[in-house]
Amino acid sequence: MSMFDERVLEKYKNLTRGIEERMINLHPIQSGGRAGDYPGVVQAVLRFVDGYSVCDFCMKGRLDLIESPPLCDFHKDIATFLDMDEARLFPGCRQAQYAAFHALVKPEDTIIIDSLAHYSTYLSAERVGANIVEVPHSGYPDFDLFLDVYTEKIEEVKKETGKWPALAFLTHVDYNYGNVFDAKSVGKILHDYGIPFVLNGAYTIGRMPVSGKDLGADVLTASLHKSFASPAPSGLLLANEGYADVVFKSSSMRGPWSGRNFGNKEVETLGCTLPGCVAIGAMAAFPYVAERIKHWGEEVKKARYFIEQLERIRGIKQLGQRPHNHDLIHFESEPFFEISKNHPRKGFFLYEELRERGVTGVQPGLSTAFKVSTYGKKWDQIKLAAEAFLDIAQKHNIPLY
Amino acid sequence: MSMFDERVLEKYKNLTRGIEERMINLHPIQSGGRAGDYPGVVQAVLRFVDGYSVCDFCMKGRLDLIESPPLCDFHKDIATFLDMDEARLFPGCRQAQYAAFHALVKPEDTIIIDSLAHYSTYLSAERVGANIVEVPHSGYPDFDLFLDVYTEKIEEVKKETGKWPALAFLTHVDYNYGNVFDAKSVGKILHDYGIPFVLNGAYTIGRMPVSGKDLGADVLTASLHKSFASPAPSGLLLANEGYADVVFKSSSMRGPWSGRNFGNKEVETLGCTLPGCVAIGAMAAFPYVAERIKHWGEEVKKARYFIEQLERIRGIKQLGQRPHNHDLIHFESEPFFEISKNHPRKGFFLYEELRERGVTGVQPGLSTAFKVSTYGKKWDQIKLAAEAFLDIAQKHNIPLY
Repeated sequence: MSMFDERVLEKYKNLTRGIEERMINLHPIQSGGRAGDYPGVVQAVLRFVDGYSVCDFCMKGRLDLIESPPLCDFHKDIATFLDMDEARLFPGCRQAQYAAFHALVKPEDTIIIDSLAHYSTYLSAERVGANIVEVPHSGYPDFDLFLDVYTEKIEEVKKETGKWPALAFLTHVDYNYGNVFDAKSVGKILHDYGIPFVLNGAYTIGRMPVSGKDLGADVLTASLHKSFASPAPSGLLLANEGYADVVFKSSSMRGPWSGRNFGNKEVETLGCTLPGCVAIGAMAAFPYVAERIKHWGEEVKKARYFIEQLERIRGIKQLGQRPHNHDLIHFESEPFFEISKNHPRKGFFLYEELRERGVTGVQPGLSTAFKVSTYGKKWDQIKLAAEAFLDIAQKHNIPLY
Repeated sequence: MSMFDERVLEKYKNLTRGIEERMINLHPIQSGGRAGDYPGVVQAVLRFVDGYSVCDFCMKGRLDLIESPPLCDFHKDIATFLDMDEARLFPGCRQAQYAAFHALVKPEDTIIIDSLAHYSTYLSAERVGANIVEVPHSGYPDFDLFLDVYTEKIEEVKKETGKWPALAFLTHVDYNYGNVFDAKSVGKILHDYGIPFVLNGAYTIGRMPVSGKDLGADVLTASLHKSFASPAPSGLLLANEGYADVVFKSSSMRGPWSGRNFGNKEVETLGCTLPGCVAIGAMAAFPYVAERIKHWGEEVKKARYFIEQLERIRGIKQLGQRPHNHDLIHFESEPFFEISKNHPRKGFFLYEELRERGVTGVQPGLSTAFKVSTYGKKWDQIKLAAEAFLDIAQKHNIPLY
């Protein structure tokens, strides 16, 4: 321990976030997971801040069986809410995806994924040792997936490897363009083949109404810290009958000398996944989320208004589906890029000039393109944020329509 | 969504812990992870309660590279603190163990583990598809591991499978008896063979000074919500040169149609592991923990005093190493079991009578044996807790020495 210099500890003594509370934050990954907007979530997190706080009355050695606090009920209620048979909490959507892949895929199997999937989907496939086949998209400017190509790809895999794909995967809403895909049509294709359909609801569950069964999902994943107003890290893995037994299979390991075995523990959760304040935060967020998803239509209206306003700046163009159906918005911003070339602050000027106008969340240093989310903002905040962009454009003599 | 009955949401609206704040809590898994005892941790968690709160200034797409809040520094400083080369945050010790196993072990490989390992070690082995060989222990009443048997087991594996074990694993302090094992002697054996040594510090890191290099660990795992005064779920995976490249290897996946690749992401973390308030909580706990480990000697004294007092009850016997070297204590309690047989509350009487005396944390319903931890309690709390047990014994006419 002689090498450890305690002076380094000073910087951990008063950790502050440094984003002004009163700013309008358009950060694309943050808007759906703002737990701090909900007093009940903050209070519950505080009460359960100790590491193993939810384990006071654990009688059966598993998180999803704890009755007080009502984790057992929560697992059932959230499954009902999303119209799936079984649910487990996970420390994030990526871990839930990986667990599903690990349970359903053997190394060297081939799986089909959409080419707009989150990077963690590619990493999950890599970690299980799967080969991937991608369903292509239309490219610039819509980046729309060719969903009917799932059929072609399935046949291709069978022809080339002699085996059906171990699963097919769709990202319900992609993280780059906020495109909403018709999961139901993919579900139908896969059910005809009897191939498991894994649907990633990271940007839908907790924002809009989702029925796993209606969409034909066999397995469904969610990010609670992305879209369910929950502290991080938190996610969900859900499965329907026929797949739940595989995805949530119990341990059959036995110590060869000791005879120890753990038949009540599930392999893919490594026994227990999400104790403490994060599980509690997700539970406390549930009533708020159940209410807010009813207003999804209004959120889409806000997004469309914001797009309409920003496209008044000549050269600013929203990429992805039009009209847009989600609050995650990708803008191409050639005119801002032109300005950055000669600006003393280079690509940081946009970020900094927005902050001067009370708006934050655009990636610092970027200006050729940027992503924002309008989710959960009030109408006057949406208007103020749009005006900030228009004002910066005018200041730099970019013409407005 | 028609099947979802919103009345179920009522129970999530005011989640309370129900363990009185003023009680002396001896719960064996909770004592080292009491984040709520440290105001700086509580405050930091509150400030970063939003899901992606640490990502405001993420420039490189990876948690361990974020400069504000100082996650980048934290990863380096915690590695130095534990005398290891590299560290990554994980959502728990079990996920860190699994990641290490997954990186180092191929399916059908054999690994050596100690027979007192946590169940999650067995589940991690099962999940990677490894065969296990157990290092035996001495059984009742000491449950001491035969550490020199590592040599024999290594030779046995080589002889029977034709291959050296992919790794050997030791639980630094076991979770049933609180026995502290001489990791250094195991490290020496493994280094002679060149077999990777994975050491689980779930019950040591954050409680006592630990130097990974001094102990000869190639890979080290920690539970922050168990022993580092942190909110859950949180853990650490650390590795030394020669193994860090394997354990933290970068993605080499490439989308066959899109060409997408993610060379800056690490496979075993699935890109990013622990955003939000939990990562912040661990950082905020660091200065407190760096201080408290200096007083480990006093914690051992408290544990020994508590054992001495409880063994005044005829028939109560501490199992595991004697004298005891850790705050986790396992008592055999035959006389309490005898009382439970004729008690109207059966095995619950001990739990309930302790609560009447301001003491909690003993598993409800158990009385043949029980586990407690004295960690972090003040001397007067230790004395009051011991007196509660003695008082219950006297009430039921169990003789005292």
